[in-house]
Amino acid sequence: MIKIQLPDGSVREVAKGTSPLDIANSISPRLAAAVVVARVRSLQPTTDGATTETETTAATETQSEEAMYGGAAQAERLVDLTTPLTEDVALELLKETDPATLRVVRHSAAHVMATAILELFPETKLGHGPATDNGFFYDVYREVPFTEADLASIEQKMAEVVARDEKFVRVEEPREKGLTDYAAQGEFMKVHFIERFTKPGDEISLYKNGNFTDFCRGPHVPSTSRVKAFKVMSIAGAYWLGDEKNQQLQRIYGTAFFNQKDLDAHFKHLEEIKARDHRVLGKQLDLFSIQEVAGAGLIFWHPKGGLIRKTMEDWMRAECVRRGYNLVVTPHIMRRELWKISGHEGYYSDNMYPPMELDDAEYRLKPMNCPGHILIYKNSPKSYRDLPVRYAELGNVYRYERSGTMHGLLRVRGFTQDDAHIFCTPDQIEDEVVACIEFAQSVLTTFGFADFKVELSTWDPKKPQDYTGSADHWATAINSLKTALGRKNIPFVEIPGEAAFYGPKIDVKLVDVLGRLWQLSTVQFDFNLPARFELEYIGEDGERHRPVMVHRALFGSVERFFGVLIEHYAGAFPMWLAPVQVGLVPISNEKHLAYAESVKARLEAAGLRVELDGGNGKMNAKIRDFGLQKFPFILVLGDKEAASDSVSVRVRAKGDEGSVTVDEFIARAKKLVDGHAMEL
Amino acid sequence: MIKIQLPDGSVREVAKGTSPLDIANSISPRLAAAVVVARVRSLQPTTDGATTETETTAATETQSEEAMYGGAAQAERLVDLTTPLTEDVALELLKETDPATLRVVRHSAAHVMATAILELFPETKLGHGPATDNGFFYDVYREVPFTEADLASIEQKMAEVVARDEKFVRVEEPREKGLTDYAAQGEFMKVHFIERFTKPGDEISLYKNGNFTDFCRGPHVPSTSRVKAFKVMSIAGAYWLGDEKNQQLQRIYGTAFFNQKDLDAHFKHLEEIKARDHRVLGKQLDLFSIQEVAGAGLIFWHPKGGLIRKTMEDWMRAECVRRGYNLVVTPHIMRRELWKISGHEGYYSDNMYPPMELDDAEYRLKPMNCPGHILIYKNSPKSYRDLPVRYAELGNVYRYERSGTMHGLLRVRGFTQDDAHIFCTPDQIEDEVVACIEFAQSVLTTFGFADFKVELSTWDPKKPQDYTGSADHWATAINSLKTALGRKNIPFVEIPGEAAFYGPKIDVKLVDVLGRLWQLSTVQFDFNLPARFELEYIGEDGERHRPVMVHRALFGSVERFFGVLIEHYAGAFPMWLAPVQVGLVPISNEKHLAYAESVKARLEAAGLRVELDGGNGKMNAKIRDFGLQKFPFILVLGDKEAASDSVSVRVRAKGDEGSVTVDEFIARAKKLVDGHAMEL
Repeated sequence: MIKIQLPDGSVREVAKGTSPLDIANSISPRLAAAVVVARVRSLQPTTDGATTETETTAATETQSEEAMYGGAAQAERLVDLTTPLTEDVALELLKETDPATLRVVRHSAAHVMATAILELFPETKLGHGPATDNGFFYDVYREVPFTEADLASIEQKMAEVVARDEKFVRVEEPREKGLTDYAAQGEFMKVHFIERFTKPGDEISLYKNGNFTDFCRGPHVPSTSRVKAFKVMSIAGAYWLGDEKNQQLQRIYGTAFFNQKDLDAHFKHLEEIKARDHRVLGKQLDLFSIQEVAGAGLIFWHPKGGLIRKTMEDWMRAECVRRGYNLVVTPHIMRRELWKISGHEGYYSDNMYPPMELDDAEYRLKPMNCPGHILIYKNSPKSYRDLPVRYAELGNVYRYERSGTMHGLLRVRGFTQDDAHIFCTPDQIEDEVVACIEFAQSVLTTFGFADFKVELSTWDPKKPQDYTGSADHWATAINSLKTALGRKNIPFVEIPGEAAFYGPKIDVKLVDVLGRLWQLSTVQFDFNLPARFELEYIGEDGERHRPVMVHRALFGSVERFFGVLIEHYAGAFPMWLAPVQVGLVPISNEKHLAYAESVKARLEAAGLRVELDGGNGKMNAKIRDFGLQKFPFILVLGDKEAASDSVSVRVRAKGDEGSVTVDEFIARAKKLVDGHAMEL
Repeated sequence: MIKIQLPDGSVREVAKGTSPLDIANSISPRLAAAVVVARVRSLQPTTDGATTETETTAATETQSEEAMYGGAAQAERLVDLTTPLTEDVALELLKETDPATLRVVRHSAAHVMATAILELFPETKLGHGPATDNGFFYDVYREVPFTEADLASIEQKMAEVVARDEKFVRVEEPREKGLTDYAAQGEFMKVHFIERFTKPGDEISLYKNGNFTDFCRGPHVPSTSRVKAFKVMSIAGAYWLGDEKNQQLQRIYGTAFFNQKDLDAHFKHLEEIKARDHRVLGKQLDLFSIQEVAGAGLIFWHPKGGLIRKTMEDWMRAECVRRGYNLVVTPHIMRRELWKISGHEGYYSDNMYPPMELDDAEYRLKPMNCPGHILIYKNSPKSYRDLPVRYAELGNVYRYERSGTMHGLLRVRGFTQDDAHIFCTPDQIEDEVVACIEFAQSVLTTFGFADFKVELSTWDPKKPQDYTGSADHWATAINSLKTALGRKNIPFVEIPGEAAFYGPKIDVKLVDVLGRLWQLSTVQFDFNLPARFELEYIGEDGERHRPVMVHRALFGSVERFFGVLIEHYAGAFPMWLAPVQVGLVPISNEKHLAYAESVKARLEAAGLRVELDGGNGKMNAKIRDFGLQKFPFILVLGDKEAASDSVSVRVRAKGDEGSVTVDEFIARAKKLVDGHAMEL
């Protein structure tokens, strides 16, 4: 007999070998039908007598290979419902409501897809097929590559596999048998995975459903009929082991949910994301471009995008000045010698552009602004009375990204950091961090983001050799960050071991209108550069001290933030950001163009950005065109309006609101602009 | 007998061999004493029967070697007063009032200096010793280099040579004798010059004074006593023939004037220039730096300089928007391929930084913004309704300058152009050029320059093969530029043959407070790039046309303009540009600091930039420090002021103006800022 402890604390004694499904059935058949997978935690005392506690690990984008095939047995783990229990455990029976279960269904869906593929294309060789945050994929190799057209037949065959309701059965067998069998089938990738993730003498686990067997750690749903709602999505190319000398694999993507409603909602979400794609909107609204002939990852800001950029930058510069920053400007290239002093030549060289040799020295494009700001700090002696010194710059930096990895405005080779460096005394840290957080909050709320998440990345105090700065420094800095977050009542997640080697940091991730997280603002301590550049200030005691240095960026990258703004607003920018705020449409060009031009002049004199369509098109076509360009307001001007010094107002996403006088409209528009209003 | 025609038109008959000095004496001994040199023009008919007319040539920085030693005999030329006249000539007797005579005195002073040097250091070998716009120099070679200390003794010896009143005597002799004599003396440079500027069989001219003889074309003043006011200034190194494998020469600089008063005025002017040196003021006022470790010609804008830059840029951006420009932003690096299309790889490569090879292509830093703007133009089809398109950018460009040639902010490797490109139809050219000129005038007057000179550089229509664009294009463009200048009533100098190969241009040179000219604004036509990039627009006729392209920059370079501003104002900037506008000095820290802080808060709330010295220094020291930093206003705050809500006002360069209320002061200060007032 073994003891089973349930989440409510109750303990049942059952025969060794009883499965979680047996226990679920013993509670209620309904529960047994609803449960997807089980989580168990050993209740055996460990060698030092304590019960094992598991660290919670953050979900990663892709289930790691280690997690799929091997790694050390964990004290707490998910298991198949049919797993015989052989020791005292704490047991949780997880239903669809538990977030962990969706990945299990998706992983099972990957097996279903592999089953279908082999039935249709038996010559296919399999790589690995994990669940992901949005679905699953399977890497496959076939001499004749799959085409988009194959996806529908695969999906159809999957439906058959599901309908057959094949049980997922876990089998354990000696590693050598697995290797021999797979080698005989020419499954070179499976052989590789077994060799890589198990060692001689191990038992390996396989999962079978029908005629399909896969090397897999599990767990799975009980049978294929539990994969209720799925879709084969797309196909992409990838080299085996990421090496272009190897076979070219294909990665077939799918997704799965517990039910059709969730699947439909997912596709609706994807459509929303697609409709907001900043690359598409950037082209459609003529905001920016990336020019093949000029190179990859380099942004050309067109007039309308340039106007939004100017608005963003003007706001940021004014806020910096208001908050006691000094605006500095530093060059884009600097001698290699300087990057040696800063350590970038050593630690960051792969991300930097290659050196340019001139007659006096080699120069490199700056990937960061810090050394430039440090040289200004060092240019004259500083006393404690001068601190804190806060240098801010909208600094253009260039970082080398491999071609093919760029993505619109979000991943680029050249971008503009709203970068600042604060040099202060240890006593000033906390206030400076609080001010940075307030500034970051102001950026987010001003630009229309209501929600954000904060992460505090700290060091791993067990590995001080991996970091620069003393334990004392780290403790003080981490403490200041925590106190500052506490003073602002900001909840945060601490991630030990995630800090850079040179200091702890706060990352602010904003949540956009679709609930997506975007890493933007960052506040980072730096114990490294002040030492490397031998920075000093004269303290109140007359002695030399080393200042504390904080890097901080709030937009992060102007380009990236702009990309997020486009997606957040789907290009329908609030008044103060909209490149064109008001579109003017005369009902008849002949009769009303002069009035339209006079209205345009009045709106422009009030500082509004106006476009008048005086072309030969029809009124309705003009209104439609302006609507597609997402102008906040379209004013229609005809006899009635001309006679009453008024305008007929159409509000974006709201429609016709009737006539108001020109002055009333100007007052409304200016109020929206000046107040940075989100709504119209 | 020969005929001598005087400037008043009268003609005298004199014996052949009569000298200009003889003729001066025959008019009046006073004239003979005042005259410096003579200008003669042959009255002999030329082969085609016409009297030769001479083109006026612009004065160059340094008298060319050709002009010193040889070249074709010119119809009109300066000659010694002692020159025997041998044919019918028009004769001008030039006095000190004639601008040409100062260079003659300076050239004679160079001979006097060479005489002194050889008397003191007979082992010295001579190079050449011309007059310049500001004085003269002589290149010399000596195994033991001259030191600054030698300059005083040379100057003293020159005074002796002048006191000896040695006559300058012209001697002509066979070239071969000159070569033999100089070779025997080891005068390798003189041998070189004779070989280079004369040919076998020539007679060469030498000038003797006392024991000194120099290969020289002349003319000179009659005798050394005419070198009345002179100074040996400085010494610099240079390689013989500019080749560092050759002997290292020294260039000894001096200057000379007709009298001590002019010499004194010249030194006062030099002192004024020195006191305004933007490199010195930049350091003293903590405006900017150039950092050895980061490289040559790269500017670091410190907080106070950054503030002025922000003010300049904000003004420029707002004006651009107001004047119908669109602000765009383009990347700093672009693929080499693009620079090939633009032609920069071919024509401009030596001024560009070397390529950087990435995994997809080679990239080069941009030396100009034009190709970036062109790509934005080309990104979407354009119709005549879209034109004129005006793209403006504060674009950072990098141009390779040889190390050692950089000069503060004026000659740098990286700078920010306030660059714009206008694409328009031929019909729009004239209005666009007028608008550019108006904008340029607005820049100059806003930043405090009352005077400017305009040059129109046109092509050489005799050499169409040297230019791109048809004769028609050139005629239209030049005509538009002239008409535009005419419409604005702006006088200009036309310089044929000075245009770039791709189009004519207007250059605006501002005149600073010391009367110095600075080349800044430029408006240039470009027939080349629209063709290279195949730019188009659809005309009213529905056909494709090529737009006209105009490059224009008004600051020219933000860095350079800032350098000129610093020198023009000697760092005493007008209110709107001053980084700190008001300095606050409490009479007693103990008693008046709180009041000072409240005044500071009020001034800052009114948008003023304020510095409060709350340190332990004495009041007078604080006032002096603020004065050295050239703050426009210093407000002193004591009991009386605190009691009456007022401030005691000291105005830069004017002094104490007594007390006014805080509100009155704010009103005055804001008016000065808003009005961009030059005076306080």
